[in-house]
Amino acid sequence: MEYIASPKNEHIKAAKKLTVKKYQKQGDAYLLEGWHLVEEALKAGQQPRRIYAINKFLEERALRPYYEQLTEISPEVAKHLSETPTPQGIFAVMPRVTGTLPEAVSGSYLLLDGIQDPGNVGTLVRTADAAGIQQVIFGDGTADAFNPKVLRAMQGSQFHVNITTTALAPVIAQLQAAQVPVYGTELNVNAKSYRDVQPTRHFGLIVGNEGNGMSQELLHQTDVNLYIPIRGEAESLNVAIAAAVVMFHLTA
Amino acid sequence: MEYIASPKNEHIKAAKKLTVKKYQKQGDAYLLEGWHLVEEALKAGQQPRRIYAINKFLEERALRPYYEQLTEISPEVAKHLSETPTPQGIFAVMPRVTGTLPEAVSGSYLLLDGIQDPGNVGTLVRTADAAGIQQVIFGDGTADAFNPKVLRAMQGSQFHVNITTTALAPVIAQLQAAQVPVYGTELNVNAKSYRDVQPTRHFGLIVGNEGNGMSQELLHQTDVNLYIPIRGEAESLNVAIAAAVVMFHLTA
Repeated sequence: MEYIASPKNEHIKAAKKLTVKKYQKQGDAYLLEGWHLVEEALKAGQQPRRIYAINKFLEERALRPYYEQLTEISPEVAKHLSETPTPQGIFAVMPRVTGTLPEAVSGSYLLLDGIQDPGNVGTLVRTADAAGIQQVIFGDGTADAFNPKVLRAMQGSQFHVNITTTALAPVIAQLQAAQVPVYGTELNVNAKSYRDVQPTRHFGLIVGNEGNGMSQELLHQTDVNLYIPIRGEAESLNVAIAAAVVMFHLTA
Repeated sequence: MEYIASPKNEHIKAAKKLTVKKYQKQGDAYLLEGWHLVEEALKAGQQPRRIYAINKFLEERALRPYYEQLTEISPEVAKHLSETPTPQGIFAVMPRVTGTLPEAVSGSYLLLDGIQDPGNVGTLVRTADAAGIQQVIFGDGTADAFNPKVLRAMQGSQFHVNITTTALAPVIAQLQAAQVPVYGTELNVNAKSYRDVQPTRHFGLIVGNEGNGMSQELLHQTDVNLYIPIRGEAESLNVAIAAAVVMFHLTA
């Protein structure tokens, strides 16, 4: 097995670049960090192009089928590749596979309309997974699905739900053509308390930008616009929190 | 009005220290940053010891009653005092007033058992406020209520709910003596789906540490232990997300 001790190694330099969107697109690959995420990717049947790991991971059972792709790295290299202050020491170069929309409506959909904060995006995907939602659509202005902070915050749920990056309007049209209700989340005079909507097997839920809410154009496309009644004096809820409350209600 | 141009000014040095717990305790004060938070503090009737603001805030109507406490600072000083990359330029030295428990049970209670991440703590307080919970108890091992990141994430809800920092066991005992149900949130064989519990006017809800959950000692004190049924393959929910789902159910 190859051993790389120096962060100046060409392969390591190339791997490090795969945390940046431009180079990810050029190489059609991205860098995944951390044992849990690498394990989840392999469990999901994704084929790593290369795995870089410090010595302590080399004997892991889950890595045995990938011995040919495995390269040992020094702790110094791990530190260089890492996006976190305390790196675990394992990284995988994975194909940048983007999901595609199912042709027929399949399960429930969470639609992200311009969610900018990577932590929010990741938490939304993780929460959608837990609530039993199968499709998460990253609309315009949403943080990239392969952004290192998004990857980390999704905590492996990216390998359980189908993530598609595409314009939201055609998705909404597809859902509506299939008689699936599409809910917006913007407080306006016609908004309905989420508690007054019955749980359904199929639905689309749109959540909007942290500061500006959802786009007016999409808002006009929705069937019903939901709001969460605020009891106290808080002015708003974090977008991931609000979406969680509505998702767990709709999937009850 | 005094004008301070240099970050080396003694008052500025002292104010900067009031972001650190040790000096906060010594001075019985803390530094609050940002227009929204300062405004909420003043609205809540809290008396600032000193307000440091760049020129553009000096004419704000809400600051007029505090003209005696107002000091103009340079943008350079604002940058020095700030905990954020893009400071707004307003800071208040506030008395470090800690809440006290009401003698009789008042409203519903959220009990934080060792929540370490300041963002989670702040989001929990903000969400409790929105759900109509009046008491938030910061138990042992929970991030400090005057930690700058906690202050920021609470987004002003610290001035709407009553925050008390104290051991949780006596609070649980007080609630139970008043016949108020106390719910834990730990997945175990006896846990009950949160959906099977009826909303009530008074309750206590304990949420536990991000990694280790709630302490076993407190767990034994609870009446019922709640869990959120996970539909997908996600292994867990973020603690603030989980608490939000349960809080909005219990306060419905």
